[in-house]
Amino acid sequence: MTNAEGTKVQRIGMVIGLRDEAVEDYRRLHADDEPGVRDLLQKHHLRNFSIFMQRLPDGRLYEFGYYEYTGDDLEGDLAALDAEPRNRAWLARCDPMQVPLPGAAGWTVMEPVYHNP
Amino acid sequence: MTNAEGTKVQRIGMVIGLRDEAVEDYRRLHADDEPGVRDLLQKHHLRNFSIFMQRLPDGRLYEFGYYEYTGDDLEGDLAALDAEPRNRAWLARCDPMQVPLPGAAGWTVMEPVYHNP
Repeated sequence: MTNAEGTKVQRIGMVIGLRDEAVEDYRRLHADDEPGVRDLLQKHHLRNFSIFMQRLPDGRLYEFGYYEYTGDDLEGDLAALDAEPRNRAWLARCDPMQVPLPGAAGWTVMEPVYHNP
Repeated sequence: MTNAEGTKVQRIGMVIGLRDEAVEDYRRLHADDEPGVRDLLQKHHLRNFSIFMQRLPDGRLYEFGYYEYTGDDLEGDLAALDAEPRNRAWLARCDPMQVPLPGAAGWTVMEPVYHNP
């Protein structure tokens, strides 16, 4: 699968819970003017990264993440991103706000069922 | 917000339930070789459209949709898409498989909280 520029791209959709009391902090940390780890996502070929938030019928808040991986070693790049000290510091702030799905340690990668360019 | 080609783009994330008994039919209808309404999405400027599926801790299946709107009248284009006879026929097949969130008639548009190019 390639994007508009002919680059190979792998689309990842993922989900995780978000604690009610963390919503405002989470929004602030992810605001457009907050640098966070934006440069590290770029460095490790995670592009066009969006997060959306929604309360579902079980009464809980969930976040849905989408990104496009443009490198050629997704596992390797994710491991390298995990090892970045600034990314570790970032996750140390975000992790306590989130509630992984049962059995998961972080975001749960979802099954892709459709894509139309 | 613009994409890599400098085109204005609006990113939409949305969610809806999926009935357990409909999973196989839904996957088949959305397979890569199924034309469905792919051309109509293009015609009305809905690009890079992905759907992912996940069972959440409430035991129910959900679908998460993501697309990029590249036109300049989202409401108008969505209304025009809704009015396409082939899209109506398509929805008549998909709608019975799906479970809108309480109070919704179809997909629920989620709050965007983050974007990194």
